[in-house]
Amino acid sequence: MVESLVNPEDLAFSESERAAVYRTIAARRDVRRGFIVDRPLPDELLQRLLAAAHSAPSVGLMQPSRFIVIRDLATRKEVHNIFEEANLQAAATYSGAQGEQYSALKLEGILEAPQNLCVVCDTQAARGHRLGRHTMPETAAYSTVCAIQNLWLAGRAEGVGVGWVSILDPVRLRAVLHIPEHILPVAYLCLGYVDQFASAPDLERFGWEKRVPLSTAVCYERYTEETAS
Amino acid sequence: MVESLVNPEDLAFSESERAAVYRTIAARRDVRRGFIVDRPLPDELLQRLLAAAHSAPSVGLMQPSRFIVIRDLATRKEVHNIFEEANLQAAATYSGAQGEQYSALKLEGILEAPQNLCVVCDTQAARGHRLGRHTMPETAAYSTVCAIQNLWLAGRAEGVGVGWVSILDPVRLRAVLHIPEHILPVAYLCLGYVDQFASAPDLERFGWEKRVPLSTAVCYERYTEETAS
Repeated sequence: MVESLVNPEDLAFSESERAAVYRTIAARRDVRRGFIVDRPLPDELLQRLLAAAHSAPSVGLMQPSRFIVIRDLATRKEVHNIFEEANLQAAATYSGAQGEQYSALKLEGILEAPQNLCVVCDTQAARGHRLGRHTMPETAAYSTVCAIQNLWLAGRAEGVGVGWVSILDPVRLRAVLHIPEHILPVAYLCLGYVDQFASAPDLERFGWEKRVPLSTAVCYERYTEETAS
Repeated sequence: MVESLVNPEDLAFSESERAAVYRTIAARRDVRRGFIVDRPLPDELLQRLLAAAHSAPSVGLMQPSRFIVIRDLATRKEVHNIFEEANLQAAATYSGAQGEQYSALKLEGILEAPQNLCVVCDTQAARGHRLGRHTMPETAAYSTVCAIQNLWLAGRAEGVGVGWVSILDPVRLRAVLHIPEHILPVAYLCLGYVDQFASAPDLERFGWEKRVPLSTAVCYERYTEETAS
């Protein structure tokens, strides 16, 4: 056992530190527009973001996440083609005004963001010796999502926009990025400096959906159905 | 369209704010021991943590997460029984020194943490109109994990320990908390003030697993196998 406990009083966060954390959480956005095409992230900044992701919790300390940094435009064009096809198919499932609204939405910044990042999970990794995964093996992939959220928040604090693109056929994405069968693609992210951060989610600003109040999301002692907001 | 853009210069984070975010990410721990049993969280603090979770990103702005706050000791005892049984079964899969090591680990604080929180996902929710879920429907559950990581970080900044217990039979957990078939239990968390935060993960301190360097987790342009650390 390594003796590494620290007195909590030494570690209490100040009011301004707490405020910074809450500000970051509130100001984080899913960014799809406004990436500054010709201003790639300095490598040391990218490494800070990846380190934030890498220090996320993981079930059994299995550390199953891997990060594929993609800067090559040819690769991004291939991924963009995959998006375009999946997005046309998705658009075809809506009709009327909703279909028009969907088609007008900007849902990714694959070509504008100078860095893309595919975050994958080695769900069968030996590391961690399966601790915590006997009953809920899905926690391996969940660990990778924790890493993504760390990166998203660190990005916001650094002025870096992050957008998650899920409108992609995973099979085709695997082929382009040489991701083997036993590795799970969890997220495809667009990363870059942005000209601005919106104060509300794009999907709310453009009328697709509204945020509901916290009270609708909380219940006590046992599950109860959501009440109308 | 709601006009809600803000000049980014007005929103740049200060160096000390960025440092606070990175400090929180680095100091966050999966807490299983040291909860202060007789010091429940004030309700306004719990609401701040839940609000942090609720403001996480969600695919298509579907906001699928719901939070079941559990304070009742009888309920926590039922959940603890579920843990005990699953943990015995898990322990039986290890042998020799590893089996002894496993059995000596403290892996949950269900009875010591005055608040437990079950975080569930309504994976079929109509909200969001399926945007982003045609090709990767698992992003609904991933949205809920983003919410959990927000809460975890906000908790650390508030001096609140958060521990994720995955050693539970989800079927029995559903029964105790009245979670219907169409709602997915994503995480069972223990929340409370703690007497200290360790400076390294418990599983590393007690010799179960070691953290690997970031370099092992990053590759470029295409997936490549992890090299030995």
